[in-house]
Amino acid sequence: MTDNPEDNVTGKVEDWWKTQIIDMKPGEIRYRGYAIEELIGNVGFAEMIWLMMRGELPARGQAELLEIALMSAVDHGPQAPGIAIARMAATCGIGLNNALASGINALGDVHGGAGEQAVNFYHGIRSEMNNEANIELTVERALDAFFSSGARYVPGFGHRFHPIDPRATRLLELVDLAASTGHVTGEYAAIGRTVEAVLERIKGRRIPMNIDGATAVIYAELGFPAPLARGLFCLSRSVGILAHAWEQTQQGGRNKGPVPRDMTWTYTGHPPRKLPD
Amino acid sequence: MTDNPEDNVTGKVEDWWKTQIIDMKPGEIRYRGYAIEELIGNVGFAEMIWLMMRGELPARGQAELLEIALMSAVDHGPQAPGIAIARMAATCGIGLNNALASGINALGDVHGGAGEQAVNFYHGIRSEMNNEANIELTVERALDAFFSSGARYVPGFGHRFHPIDPRATRLLELVDLAASTGHVTGEYAAIGRTVEAVLERIKGRRIPMNIDGATAVIYAELGFPAPLARGLFCLSRSVGILAHAWEQTQQGGRNKGPVPRDMTWTYTGHPPRKLPD
Amino acid sequence: MTDNPEDNVTGKVEDWWKTQIIDMKPGEIRYRGYAIEELIGNVGFAEMIWLMMRGELPARGQAELLEIALMSAVDHGPQAPGIAIARMAATCGIGLNNALASGINALGDVHGGAGEQAVNFYHGIRSEMNNEANIELTVERALDAFFSSGARYVPGFGHRFHPIDPRATRLLELVDLAASTGHVTGEYAAIGRTVEAVLERIKGRRIPMNIDGATAVIYAELGFPAPLARGLFCLSRSVGILAHAWEQTQQGGRNKGPVPRDMTWTYTGHPPRKLPD
Amino acid sequence: MTDNPEDNVTGKVEDWWKTQIIDMKPGEIRYRGYAIEELIGNVGFAEMIWLMMRGELPARGQAELLEIALMSAVDHGPQAPGIAIARMAATCGIGLNNALASGINALGDVHGGAGEQAVNFYHGIRSEMNNEANIELTVERALDAFFSSGARYVPGFGHRFHPIDPRATRLLELVDLAASTGHVTGEYAAIGRTVEAVLERIKGRRIPMNIDGATAVIYAELGFPAPLARGLFCLSRSVGILAHAWEQTQQGGRNKGPVPRDMTWTYTGHPPRKLPD
Repeated sequence: MTDNPEDNVTGKVEDWWKTQIIDMKPGEIRYRGYAIEELIGNVGFAEMIWLMMRGELPARGQAELLEIALMSAVDHGPQAPGIAIARMAATCGIGLNNALASGINALGDVHGGAGEQAVNFYHGIRSEMNNEANIELTVERALDAFFSSGARYVPGFGHRFHPIDPRATRLLELVDLAASTGHVTGEYAAIGRTVEAVLERIKGRRIPMNIDGATAVIYAELGFPAPLARGLFCLSRSVGILAHAWEQTQQGGRNKGPVPRDMTWTYTGHPPRKLPD
Repeated sequence: MTDNPEDNVTGKVEDWWKTQIIDMKPGEIRYRGYAIEELIGNVGFAEMIWLMMRGELPARGQAELLEIALMSAVDHGPQAPGIAIARMAATCGIGLNNALASGINALGDVHGGAGEQAVNFYHGIRSEMNNEANIELTVERALDAFFSSGARYVPGFGHRFHPIDPRATRLLELVDLAASTGHVTGEYAAIGRTVEAVLERIKGRRIPMNIDGATAVIYAELGFPAPLARGLFCLSRSVGILAHAWEQTQQGGRNKGPVPRDMTWTYTGHPPRKLPD
Repeated sequence: MTDNPEDNVTGKVEDWWKTQIIDMKPGEIRYRGYAIEELIGNVGFAEMIWLMMRGELPARGQAELLEIALMSAVDHGPQAPGIAIARMAATCGIGLNNALASGINALGDVHGGAGEQAVNFYHGIRSEMNNEANIELTVERALDAFFSSGARYVPGFGHRFHPIDPRATRLLELVDLAASTGHVTGEYAAIGRTVEAVLERIKGRRIPMNIDGATAVIYAELGFPAPLARGLFCLSRSVGILAHAWEQTQQGGRNKGPVPRDMTWTYTGHPPRKLPD
Repeated sequence: MTDNPEDNVTGKVEDWWKTQIIDMKPGEIRYRGYAIEELIGNVGFAEMIWLMMRGELPARGQAELLEIALMSAVDHGPQAPGIAIARMAATCGIGLNNALASGINALGDVHGGAGEQAVNFYHGIRSEMNNEANIELTVERALDAFFSSGARYVPGFGHRFHPIDPRATRLLELVDLAASTGHVTGEYAAIGRTVEAVLERIKGRRIPMNIDGATAVIYAELGFPAPLARGLFCLSRSVGILAHAWEQTQQGGRNKGPVPRDMTWTYTGHPPRKLPD
């Protein structure tokens, strides 16, 4: 097939890892084709995140909205398992990177997946709307189907702690602003608000949009695929996890457990017994 | 250098990962030279662990002592950060393997390193004893040097919860038994006991050997290098971490935080303020 | 309910963490009701694992079979991602526990889930057999349903490297032996073998049972719930991950990448370009 | 001490977790005293990161420099172990958050610690300069002491791939610019450059400042404590890790190992042997 078998093997090994993200030669680093020294100082952190994930630079209005979503979800305090895990880990004699990783590792389907699920839910509604002009009706059907499938929580709506999530209201305002200046269409903001309205009608009480539902509106407006809503949430929450791991490091403590030391847990198992003979 | 350049590149790539542990051909798997189908059914789990770490099969008495160390440290309950982390992680929508990894990740210098540090400490004493027949004197000097360096806790001694660690006493008995039958020398048991005795004399109160100090005696008697004392502890504690992650999975719960939900944390930071203009 | 409100809060906090696994008082540790000092020296590592997961001690024959499953799957070499990840991590300046956790973290649905999926598949067949004496017919229907659903790989069957998995054959022999002495029923061994036979008939070529299919037979015979098949695989594979992380630590190296250093990856992205004005 | 013992216990539990970072009441979230709805839309992502870590908002020029450091270190390609680990993990059937955590977990002392070590090294020089006006002399002594201690690599200088790190040059230019407008003092830029110059004199060849040395200059100029240089690097590199994990997810693949599938590793262990009788 070829005259130079060594090139074949080298090529095969180099082809084992393929990427469109980064190209490197000695003294040269390019992300998506742009030289790093040109990007530095000309492109902000949110624009860089966009470029790395999407392959192209965003328009300024898009970058602003992404930055807003990223800065809005950084922390929810020491009761959130991801934060508590990182704080506990920080007292166990591991690196700050390991404590950070421990917190992020917990941002799974339940703790970090609501945004991804909400984007998926919005996408489903959006795609049905191609055949149906009536948004209320489309949302109603989507919610009916959702609850019929046995699901209990609409991802992105309701909060066990906040009656109204102060972040959601503010984020939607900023989406409206971006829509008014043409940076986004506003379609997903409309879908999100209709979900909230129909949900209230069905349930007989308000189950307001929460931070995940609102950032999902932004990620959907900006055209991110659903799994990246989780990915971007992880980048955002990393900030809070790091801040708490660092604060805990400064507070000190060794092998910090979840509750005060003199409190034990409740044992509900077998009473004391002897080994069988 | 060679007539076949392709072999060179292939060889270079294959040499990038070198191991003495496992050899594989299609339909053939050998650990340390032994065919897997011959090992299965003839070699126990503890023997396999020894073979994988050390390269040779242990004598029966060695394997028994290793097995005892492994089974003795599996769990210390939901107040231990590694266990609590795994239980919290198990409610966040991640896999059982991820919850297990989250717990193990926390077994760092403080939470999982005492055994390794104790083996190192014992090794230091043992090596001084080559020049000094008097074990009491050698231990005294080692402890003096240790406390002079600013260290506060002798690794493997004292426990914040147990006045006497019931595991340590029993483990030392079994080391004595193995020494009496010639499976180990008993040197490290003597060192450990002398550390306990001298420590009591220095401090004016008993600071008894704990589980880490006792398993460190076993690992040192068996000739494991100090870092593997941590590694083997991780294998042991993995059992408890998995049991708790699984129990928590069955109990259910979503995003379980460290303390009951209606209790928040204490905020000690800046009072409410407005953004500067 | 009570005259002492403080007890209420204390109780509520202590109830936040409930377990049937471990009870502790100062100087006293009991697993599933058994005092630790009584377990030590009387109960092996595999029996301890069983006790921790299941709540009761196994019969000797059961413990032996569990031990066989655990020792049979410890390693599959540096090409397996979990092993490679741990070896790379071990060159990055993190603890042995962190390297171990990094490897275990990768044992997800694809890399560590085949055993769990196989147990589930066997369970489905077993439960259909209550209504249908003919095992061949039941398995045929199960496979038909499986492939109709779009699935491509039957979990626990076929191997991309081994034409015959030498571990599976040997493990099944040992299950037969345990069945002949009444320690297990042998039902799942029969199901597994029938799956293999029917699969060959359907596909026109042999797709032999692999290690995951065979350990799944054992776990199902022993009555473990499917998710613990993954959990137990993680305990087993931890041994190999640790052995490789430790070997890599001894080999040294800093920031070891996947392929030799002078080989780069293949860049398939945008050609060099300048930032837009 | 008090009339209400229940308050005591509640207080003790709530005091177990203390933070100056976040305060929450139902419907109210404040970071460092600022209401979240006021921060959203008014404060960028880099400013938010600063606020979370430091407790106060940065000046604009400070935030710009932090943002530059964060965007400059996002990725170094699939040969970097953190990136390779995340890509491999992404093919193992775990969540995007788990793949991200696996990559970050590897950013230890060797793979992610150079920035922290460089800040520490700069701090040491800076503090010596209080007694010594001559920067060259101070740096010379610091390097002498460093090499005398047996260390081989000056953290933040030299690169095994890039003869000149294109990022370092550009970053230093931007520090100069910030110094010229009074946002930073420029002291650490001077220290960094002097280290480079003296190092060249000592070694007889140029060992140029790399990305870690340059971002360390920025973090030191901005007053971050050394451990946060690692923490902030983790936030930065998370972007690249996520981008690669996501790209790998889209490329597909199952259980992707480090090198092409038909290449194995080199086995250097014991030749085939039989179990002893």
